Amino acid sequence: MLSLESKTADRWLDQVDGHLEEILIDHAHCEKKAAGTAMNLLFAYVDNIELCREMTEIVEEELSHFHLVIDLLGRRGIRFRRLTPSTYGRKLNDLVRRQEPQRAVDRLLVAGLIEARSCERFDLLRQHMRRLVDGAAFDNELADFYESLFESEARHHSTYVRLAKSFASADAVQARLAELAAAEAQIVAEGDPLPRMHS
Amino acid sequence: MLSLESKTADRWLDQVDGHLEEILIDHAHCEKKAAGTAMNLLFAYVDNIELCREMTEIVEEELSHFHLVIDLLGRRGIRFRRLTPSTYGRKLNDLVRRQEPQRAVDRLLVAGLIEARSCERFDLLRQHMRRLVDGAAFDNELADFYESLFESEARHHSTYVRLAKSFASADAVQARLAELAAAEAQIVAEGDPLPRMHS
Repeated sequence: MLSLESKTADRWLDQVDGHLEEILIDHAHCEKKAAGTAMNLLFAYVDNIELCREMTEIVEEELSHFHLVIDLLGRRGIRFRRLTPSTYGRKLNDLVRRQEPQRAVDRLLVAGLIEARSCERFDLLRQHMRRLVDGAAFDNELADFYESLFESEARHHSTYVRLAKSFASADAVQARLAELAAAEAQIVAEGDPLPRMHS
Repeated sequence: MLSLESKTADRWLDQVDGHLEEILIDHAHCEKKAAGTAMNLLFAYVDNIELCREMTEIVEEELSHFHLVIDLLGRRGIRFRRLTPSTYGRKLNDLVRRQEPQRAVDRLLVAGLIEARSCERFDLLRQHMRRLVDGAAFDNELADFYESLFESEARHHSTYVRLAKSFASADAVQARLAELAAAEAQIVAEGDPLPRMHS
């Protein structure tokens, strides 16, 4: 799905079940970080007008998701607070090549892979929250919420991959995407003891 | 006006007249930087929900202004490009105290003063672009444009000053604002040989 080289293991849903509050708080941070990533890319490649326009839209969408999660936390009486992030983002960013234009390609593809993984996990979470417990869906509000976010994460994934092709040939981008997706699958397989969106 | 301790000298309008293209390109960069500043504040003080909401709105407004300037450059056949920034922002940021919560107060007030100065200069530019040359306004499109930006910069100024009061007493904020405004007036009086929005 969406360039990913692996499916999330059931182990992750066990982490979700034991720590839903932390997963929700981490989700808010992830939306904020996604907005920050798009803003950083806008600053780094401001000469690329198409990139600027797309990054602006992504910043706005991710910030609006951030507020949706914050509101959801509020309705559930969960205090939004700082959390130690999972190691996922750092490990992926360590793979980014230093030299331009390879650096641009990698930054965009890493951002695209994070969107793809989020998308895959929102779909899992949607199904998981609709599972029947004592004859009723476990949490329809959360299921609807994850469903509502799915489409935009998938779209962002495509946008990032398309923009990478303004810095390298389509073939070079596809080859690098396959490499990075393999590395991403490895990072996800290693997992993280902290219960997080990307653990 | 808006906490500023000085009016812009006529010297600056001479810089504008000689280098309007550079001023317009720098304006686009300023809008982008204003969005970046609001995003950085959101990241730094994410526990402050009111601040997060206001910063989100400012990020969106500044990015939309950024695109308005980019479009205007496009209509005029001016290539958007990187420019050496004026020293104004760096000199102001050097005044920010290191320790929290003073640091938060200063970051917000410096952001507010930059908005105030932009606002003052948009008003000057609006008047300047409406001046009669051979019986007709010099540049009505630019005059209308600067007029359209005036209100939001003034509003952002007020937002930043109000938010500073969530990190210190109203009296402490007013006293510090007066200090920083005096420093800002000094920095503006020194000027900058590069023709820029804040030279």
